[in-house]
Amino acid sequence: MKKFMDKDFLLNNDVAVELYHNYAKHTPILDYHCHINPQEIAEDKKFENMTQVWLGGDHYKWRQMRSNGVAEEFVTGKASDREKFQKWAETLEKAIGNPLYHWSHLELQRYFDYFGVLNGDTAEEVWNLCNAKLQETNMSVRGLIKQSNVTLICTTDDPIDSLKWHKKIAADEDFTVQVLPAWRPDRAINIEKSDFLDYLEDLSKVAGLAIHSIADLKKVLCLRMDFFEECGCKLSDHGLDFVMYVPATVEEVAEIFYKRLLKETISKQEELAFKTAMLQFLAKEYHKRDWVMQLHYGGKRNNNTLQFRKLGPDTGYDCIGNTAPAAQLADFLDSLATTAQLPKTILYSLNPNDDGVIGTMLGCFQDAQAIGKIQQGSAWWFNDHKVGMENQMISLGNLGLLGNFVGMLTDSRSFLSYTRHEYFRRILCNLIGTWVEYGEYPKDDKALAAIIKGISYNNAVDYFCFDLTRV
Amino acid sequence: MKKFMDKDFLLNNDVAVELYHNYAKHTPILDYHCHINPQEIAEDKKFENMTQVWLGGDHYKWRQMRSNGVAEEFVTGKASDREKFQKWAETLEKAIGNPLYHWSHLELQRYFDYFGVLNGDTAEEVWNLCNAKLQETNMSVRGLIKQSNVTLICTTDDPIDSLKWHKKIAADEDFTVQVLPAWRPDRAINIEKSDFLDYLEDLSKVAGLAIHSIADLKKVLCLRMDFFEECGCKLSDHGLDFVMYVPATVEEVAEIFYKRLLKETISKQEELAFKTAMLQFLAKEYHKRDWVMQLHYGGKRNNNTLQFRKLGPDTGYDCIGNTAPAAQLADFLDSLATTAQLPKTILYSLNPNDDGVIGTMLGCFQDAQAIGKIQQGSAWWFNDHKVGMENQMISLGNLGLLGNFVGMLTDSRSFLSYTRHEYFRRILCNLIGTWVEYGEYPKDDKALAAIIKGISYNNAVDYFCFDLTRV
Amino acid sequence: MKKFMDKDFLLNNDVAVELYHNYAKHTPILDYHCHINPQEIAEDKKFENMTQVWLGGDHYKWRQMRSNGVAEEFVTGKASDREKFQKWAETLEKAIGNPLYHWSHLELQRYFDYFGVLNGDTAEEVWNLCNAKLQETNMSVRGLIKQSNVTLICTTDDPIDSLKWHKKIAADEDFTVQVLPAWRPDRAINIEKSDFLDYLEDLSKVAGLAIHSIADLKKVLCLRMDFFEECGCKLSDHGLDFVMYVPATVEEVAEIFYKRLLKETISKQEELAFKTAMLQFLAKEYHKRDWVMQLHYGGKRNNNTLQFRKLGPDTGYDCIGNTAPAAQLADFLDSLATTAQLPKTILYSLNPNDDGVIGTMLGCFQDAQAIGKIQQGSAWWFNDHKVGMENQMISLGNLGLLGNFVGMLTDSRSFLSYTRHEYFRRILCNLIGTWVEYGEYPKDDKALAAIIKGISYNNAVDYFCFDLTRV
Repeated sequence: MKKFMDKDFLLNNDVAVELYHNYAKHTPILDYHCHINPQEIAEDKKFENMTQVWLGGDHYKWRQMRSNGVAEEFVTGKASDREKFQKWAETLEKAIGNPLYHWSHLELQRYFDYFGVLNGDTAEEVWNLCNAKLQETNMSVRGLIKQSNVTLICTTDDPIDSLKWHKKIAADEDFTVQVLPAWRPDRAINIEKSDFLDYLEDLSKVAGLAIHSIADLKKVLCLRMDFFEECGCKLSDHGLDFVMYVPATVEEVAEIFYKRLLKETISKQEELAFKTAMLQFLAKEYHKRDWVMQLHYGGKRNNNTLQFRKLGPDTGYDCIGNTAPAAQLADFLDSLATTAQLPKTILYSLNPNDDGVIGTMLGCFQDAQAIGKIQQGSAWWFNDHKVGMENQMISLGNLGLLGNFVGMLTDSRSFLSYTRHEYFRRILCNLIGTWVEYGEYPKDDKALAAIIKGISYNNAVDYFCFDLTRV
Repeated sequence: MKKFMDKDFLLNNDVAVELYHNYAKHTPILDYHCHINPQEIAEDKKFENMTQVWLGGDHYKWRQMRSNGVAEEFVTGKASDREKFQKWAETLEKAIGNPLYHWSHLELQRYFDYFGVLNGDTAEEVWNLCNAKLQETNMSVRGLIKQSNVTLICTTDDPIDSLKWHKKIAADEDFTVQVLPAWRPDRAINIEKSDFLDYLEDLSKVAGLAIHSIADLKKVLCLRMDFFEECGCKLSDHGLDFVMYVPATVEEVAEIFYKRLLKETISKQEELAFKTAMLQFLAKEYHKRDWVMQLHYGGKRNNNTLQFRKLGPDTGYDCIGNTAPAAQLADFLDSLATTAQLPKTILYSLNPNDDGVIGTMLGCFQDAQAIGKIQQGSAWWFNDHKVGMENQMISLGNLGLLGNFVGMLTDSRSFLSYTRHEYFRRILCNLIGTWVEYGEYPKDDKALAAIIKGISYNNAVDYFCFDLTRV
Repeated sequence: MKKFMDKDFLLNNDVAVELYHNYAKHTPILDYHCHINPQEIAEDKKFENMTQVWLGGDHYKWRQMRSNGVAEEFVTGKASDREKFQKWAETLEKAIGNPLYHWSHLELQRYFDYFGVLNGDTAEEVWNLCNAKLQETNMSVRGLIKQSNVTLICTTDDPIDSLKWHKKIAADEDFTVQVLPAWRPDRAINIEKSDFLDYLEDLSKVAGLAIHSIADLKKVLCLRMDFFEECGCKLSDHGLDFVMYVPATVEEVAEIFYKRLLKETISKQEELAFKTAMLQFLAKEYHKRDWVMQLHYGGKRNNNTLQFRKLGPDTGYDCIGNTAPAAQLADFLDSLATTAQLPKTILYSLNPNDDGVIGTMLGCFQDAQAIGKIQQGSAWWFNDHKVGMENQMISLGNLGLLGNFVGMLTDSRSFLSYTRHEYFRRILCNLIGTWVEYGEYPKDDKALAAIIKGISYNNAVDYFCFDLTRV
């Protein structure tokens, strides 16, 4: 029996241990997609207690607490921080097999030097120990980033964002970690939303250009992309129900947009036609700028209306959807490849059943623009667990070139979550180590080092063309 | 090499062995969902021979015999019981990797003390040995239930059922195992079926109330629910192609029902609107009564018309379907949650691809009404095998709180099938034991005992609010 | 650590080793489905160099090269054979976890006695060694087939094919391996294709019968089936997007065909109705002739229009689709079973998510016509890797009778790919060996030998009724 989460956690054979400790462990972290607030980096925020750190906005944990029958008062309500922490500790005991169990203990080990087990009985001890530790200097946001060996972070930003915090961070010579914006123009595309027109107004203001037509909208977006580019942006991100392909003529799309401006009703078909056209336009812009296009799809969000009204989005009421047509994804990508304007693209589906579709889709659109031009993103959100990551990498290996995978990102709102890179790397090293142990891949140290360091770091450096040095 | 199906069958490491033998093995069985005939318990039926026991109505076995090219004569036809048994034994040899292989041998071991291998050559020996054993007193239906350490059984019953056998069993002080009805009102909902109006008549008679409107239908169903409740009913069950959400106004639904009463044609859309409304009505009633709602969906039944005409339903001609929209399931549950009338719910899909959807759906509707209020049911029917059960529990672990899982049920028509609980528990202990062995969960005996006993028994006691004592 | 791909490659326990070396290794190969060109057998083609052998038409490899950012010039373009080989060798290093990694090294080991590792550094050495070896006598097409211990090959042939090469091979007494045609009438069914009418003309010519009605078409196809039968054909094959069931009257289908003859537009619904009717007609013919019907579905082909225009089909631009309705598959099969005219059928879906649907569909249509009458085909195309084959066999085992599985085929265009049968058998032996090691199936040598030899060879001999002797 191995000890609980010791130094060889998840490394279940000799080669795995060797690969992790020799090649993965000390490799820096490049977190190319997350949702942290750059203001907190700029201001070097400090945390008062563990409930703030862990339960402040983490809807992964909220879901599990509710699954444990915990009343909302102790989740997002008015209970005291100490009470909430207790409820969380009691919930965690039941979370056997859940990534939160491992993430939480990795965070306790790496950032708080706590190597015990958190549960209802130890909650008081952990609460006191961690809260004390949180007062230390290196436990500020910047301290956490630095001790995590992070070299670069991409946030997720709306086109109307002033990027003022990014600029501040960049200007601060004391803090050398790159914090770059990433372009997420969902609100400029979601024509069906009630606040679309308000958003256009905001966009118009920030760009200093009125929007009376789709041509104006595109012009404004180009201006904003120019601005993002100046601030170091290298990638975009889209959150979609599914990747659609509903082609329409330029005139038809212009007409749909006018209808919306006039507050007329837009049909579902018109919505999809507009979105198709906008995605095509943006994709071509990304291609021109050598940006990467990230497409996140396959979820169904805000399923609990009652709670949505109370708490808003991103509060733990989302689920996996099952309506992403492979044919439309293929046709959408083809529509860009036909004119050689398909950008580097990363596909993430929330539904793990899509692994086969995505893994074979990649191969249809690869070309010499980049090594591994079309990528399957790392196991996303609900799939971000041991089994999910293993399955995604096994699928990639089966269907494509695993060696070219750009690897892990946190997708997180938390500054403790860099341990998820460690979690990923342990799983990666164990997977590849197992293959070597069983004679399925040669024990060729040079090749193995290249693969492990590549997937941990170097592939992303090359792929996104960041101003970083390979290790 | 381990011996064939010995005492540590499926327990492949030390912790697994310890968990099973210390915590799972002697824990009683609570079979909260099955299809046994209560009359056979009331009358304490005895069996003449193994073909009656095994092949009388078990369409799992019939399918496999047909897959082995066995003529229907030897499956459901006029061949002798001994001949049928021979064909089954010859089929079983080919069933490597199939749960029937393990179930059959577990049953031979536990109930007949036969520890050999059943195949064409040993069929004669097994036939004689088992038939002799069947004549012993403890091999009657009640004997089998008692020696299986069962404390409570829920059958599956139609609203028109008189529940007379349940009453008889309850009144019999010699037999202390609780045998409770469970409410399965499919026929009251399936408006599209040709016998729907006949069924309404039966329902009307049994309730002593005429049905001239949907309001009448609801009233009648409430009366029957009251009656079921008096008889100890704690849960309902629905068999659906998929969980639909086609909302309609009260008037529209009433109109659809009238059309059906007048024998007018109902469109598919109208059928779904009626079913949505009826499911909503019933779900709210379950909520009020604190009953659990079981939703079984994802199958496609009676696919072989020729054989259906000869043999009727439940004869081995069903398959897994692939058209259950996540969005409608979410919207249906939301329609109940919005008014805080969503009952405790267990979701079972026959399609294992739905694991991700269900596992994430749960989290959207949990609340403080119960610990683990929304559950994913144990691997159902075609998935009720080692891999299926492991995958369902791994998925639950990845996405929710495995520790709160209400665990196994037999879903069976057979009184030998309590060994499926043993099968399940071995798989459970092996899964959790493996995690502990690899340092993924601490070797905390108190926590592990709580999890194993919880999933084996206690969670179901608490969840369904049965009159039973935790162990 | 096991040595890289040594004699016990993929055999990870003692029973697995024993099963493979005792029962599987020396069993001959029956390749009942492939895409090799019979002309190359008739003419006993020789190869000049490894690029011709490996990269001449193998779009599996092309995809991976493109995934490695290799320019098309080095894939299908004008670069030299040596340069292409280099690019392939450099790509292969990244293909950790990919079946091509194993297939390539198995081919190097078995046909070229090269037991090293192919990568960018060793490419020159391998190039020289293999090219020299290719000049030896036993490295011609027939030499490769003979040294692979192949007894029978089924090619894939269009109804208009003259089968002259099959006849030539059959007439040649020096070459005793059976090379039989298999009937693939896709072009006679694909009414929506632009070249459908041209194809009808070709068909008409080759049969010596004008086609003015669907009745004529059927008559012509029957004549051609008679001819294929004379040449030893025992099975058919269909490539479909999905198995459809859109029933229509004889008159409606005749009308659709007339419309097409008149070059009028055919709706999607009409296309599917026509295809349904033609598939039903053909299936009944197969039943009459005791042919096997293979249904391959679930792909989406030719997704990259730009490359399709340059390179045509089968050049590496296909992907897995996700729109195969279980209900239509069931209804199609039922429509044949109803009149007892369902032929022996093998179902292959390109989407591994369909495993559950297929595995349970089989059982709905089994009967005494054959042992394992309805089969799930071996893991197909993109699934033809270790995980895919394991999953397909585990699923078969879970849901049906694995012991009756007809086993592996190459589906290949290459004469080196018989090593895929070795790959399959190792995986099969490891899977079953593991079950025996863990006590899940008895160590009954007689039963195990029957299962391993059955799945490797004998089941296919019996199922297809080939003129071959069981081993």
